[in-house]
Amino acid sequence: MSATLAEKILARACGQATVRAGEILTARLDLLMMHDSGGPRRVAGRLEKLGASVWDKDKVVVVSDHFVPAVDMESADILALTRNWARKAGVTHYDMLGICHVVLQENGHVQPGMFCVGGDSHSPSGGAFGAFMVGMGATDITGALVTGEVWLRVPQTTRIQIDGQLADGVSAKDIMLMLCAQHGMGNEGQVFEFGGSAIAALPMHERLTLCNMAAELGAETGIVEPDATTLAALEAAGKPFTGDISQWRSDADAAYAAVHRYNAADITPYVAAPHSPANSRPVAEHAGVRVDQAYIGACTGAKLEDLRMAARALAGRKVAKGTRLLIAPASVAMTNQAAAEGTLATLTAAGAILLPSGCGACAGMGAGMLSAGEVCISTTARNFKGRMGSAQADVYLASPYSVAAAAVAGHIIDPRDLLGESA
Amino acid sequence: MSATLAEKILARACGQATVRAGEILTARLDLLMMHDSGGPRRVAGRLEKLGASVWDKDKVVVVSDHFVPAVDMESADILALTRNWARKAGVTHYDMLGICHVVLQENGHVQPGMFCVGGDSHSPSGGAFGAFMVGMGATDITGALVTGEVWLRVPQTTRIQIDGQLADGVSAKDIMLMLCAQHGMGNEGQVFEFGGSAIAALPMHERLTLCNMAAELGAETGIVEPDATTLAALEAAGKPFTGDISQWRSDADAAYAAVHRYNAADITPYVAAPHSPANSRPVAEHAGVRVDQAYIGACTGAKLEDLRMAARALAGRKVAKGTRLLIAPASVAMTNQAAAEGTLATLTAAGAILLPSGCGACAGMGAGMLSAGEVCISTTARNFKGRMGSAQADVYLASPYSVAAAAVAGHIIDPRDLLGESA
Repeated sequence: MSATLAEKILARACGQATVRAGEILTARLDLLMMHDSGGPRRVAGRLEKLGASVWDKDKVVVVSDHFVPAVDMESADILALTRNWARKAGVTHYDMLGICHVVLQENGHVQPGMFCVGGDSHSPSGGAFGAFMVGMGATDITGALVTGEVWLRVPQTTRIQIDGQLADGVSAKDIMLMLCAQHGMGNEGQVFEFGGSAIAALPMHERLTLCNMAAELGAETGIVEPDATTLAALEAAGKPFTGDISQWRSDADAAYAAVHRYNAADITPYVAAPHSPANSRPVAEHAGVRVDQAYIGACTGAKLEDLRMAARALAGRKVAKGTRLLIAPASVAMTNQAAAEGTLATLTAAGAILLPSGCGACAGMGAGMLSAGEVCISTTARNFKGRMGSAQADVYLASPYSVAAAAVAGHIIDPRDLLGESA
Repeated sequence: MSATLAEKILARACGQATVRAGEILTARLDLLMMHDSGGPRRVAGRLEKLGASVWDKDKVVVVSDHFVPAVDMESADILALTRNWARKAGVTHYDMLGICHVVLQENGHVQPGMFCVGGDSHSPSGGAFGAFMVGMGATDITGALVTGEVWLRVPQTTRIQIDGQLADGVSAKDIMLMLCAQHGMGNEGQVFEFGGSAIAALPMHERLTLCNMAAELGAETGIVEPDATTLAALEAAGKPFTGDISQWRSDADAAYAAVHRYNAADITPYVAAPHSPANSRPVAEHAGVRVDQAYIGACTGAKLEDLRMAARALAGRKVAKGTRLLIAPASVAMTNQAAAEGTLATLTAAGAILLPSGCGACAGMGAGMLSAGEVCISTTARNFKGRMGSAQADVYLASPYSVAAAAVAGHIIDPRDLLGESA
């Protein structure tokens, strides 16, 4: 029977030859990720009460990213609790520095064909590596942590087929904001599978943005078929893939719930207006909106590729007076790489203020909170009311190109106008 | 009548030929600095109630450094209030980025012979430029803001005479910690005047550390006679000194309360144990103390020269496992310079986590808060109980060399041992 990539992974994880969309099954976990916010501080007490321990110490990854670095006593205590629990539980991986969805991939923990869960709504990021990875709350995580299993309802697969070449100044974030506008946030029980020549041409950091924001579509997860780019990234992470990659592809005659086709060249920069990613429109419709803060951060907007996009827009230019540009690289390793290659110097020379790596303002924590009446344009994934501070603040979502361009102009502009000019 | 530099400045500011220590006089201000913590949010309401306005818009400098970047709604609101008040009051200078004591000097606002007040206890920093600058609380600042005058009791001058050459790996921070150990914190009514060939050889950033920490001696202020180094710094800041610098020196036969002489070559790295700068001892006495966090930040520890010292100790080395190294450059301009010259890349390559410029954890705000039982070694000026987070945390104070060396070792070591070795 022909199957989609997601169905093939679930069949393997459930120990069946095939699965059907809608079936309820129990799957064995290859990996469980949790972070300092939804992790140890939520599950430690429950495990102790149950007298239970972690099912497999090598398959559990703990990342401190929400409360790091500690900005108050509460954060400091949560970080200490997280570290101490991980140490005591004997968990192998708990000292990576950066946002969970990014350091997980950066360290090669997620491999093609894996079935993984993460204690965070943006866990679909793992799909960038051809894995099936879903987000769960702390209660479900507790059960999974002890049993190494979860139950699930097999989702349908929706194919997003994008062929051709993206225009200069258009990125994965624009693709996702466009999809949010077209498909809304009510795609429960769906896996979004991204494919086509435009997707195959994207580097891993951009694929992470695609799958991550499947969460913004309300989907179960997102996934990209693994290829040479995937293998090269795992090789670079020091965890080369040892299986047969050809098995982790959707069959040509797989049954999709729907297939949506796009010509990459037609996709333009998109900007989401407050207070939902689904409020996205082509950038021209928001041009001129004055910006107090431009924020380049989060798992969907401050990876090395994102920083490079921002640097291209900022090189030789200055942040507008009256606008502040805050940049929080997604991981410490990416900060190092950006510093070494000169990208960081380009950003700071333009007047960017560097923030530490972590979820930061995207999660309503750390630097970059907004006051009432302030307007922010941000590379983050969500602009729900009050998420970055005051419920009376307005947050627009956009690509690193668009956010950097707005920082220079002091208001929203089409980044292609800036990239086309010499600085 | 012969006079010290401090007495000459006060005589001029009070419109008298001479002043005597102990005299109570009224002095005209050349500059008033206040920040987001003690500034507009404290004085705005009082001014409104009085129906009063700022005495001289060009002589008032407002710096946002305590709550920047905003880490919560309260900070965001305070920053907005600060900006809006400054704009409405017509204050000329309010948009500099970095710690007040540093950006004030970086922008050439403090000039030799000036009489200045600052709404912060570390305002003595201004003495590095041969000015008389004291810290005041928000109530006194309100009065000064309206009248352009303050009353004061003329302090005595104590001379710290340091001749010869400091050993490699010994810095201004070590000098001040040594003085705190020897002279304690009870030096009310004293100006500490720093002089001698070792002081003359110090760059401006190091002189700022000297004068800044006069506050840790409990002194009125600190001061250094201006010289060619001072003039060059003002030139570089785009505010060249136009007066006659020869008048701003203490007379050879000036009456000092005391003169303490030191041979620079005898000064060794000092480390202050919890919970007072006066608990300082030579580093060897604290060697081996395990360190959870090494913090390079604040006006006394994260200026460009401080970052360069840290980079020397960190070049080609790695932060010890189990220790975190946080670095918050003192100003955005210094971050830019450090990025451009490669200093920042050296720091991040060693595993340092970059934090935004601002008072940060030194003021118990922003990233770097400590949990109970944690141990931190810090380049900040004060280690009062609970200042950086939990009252059950231990903070040791040391130079950038010593803090960086401890980050590499995972415990306190003599930085000279590290600097002497090849990485």
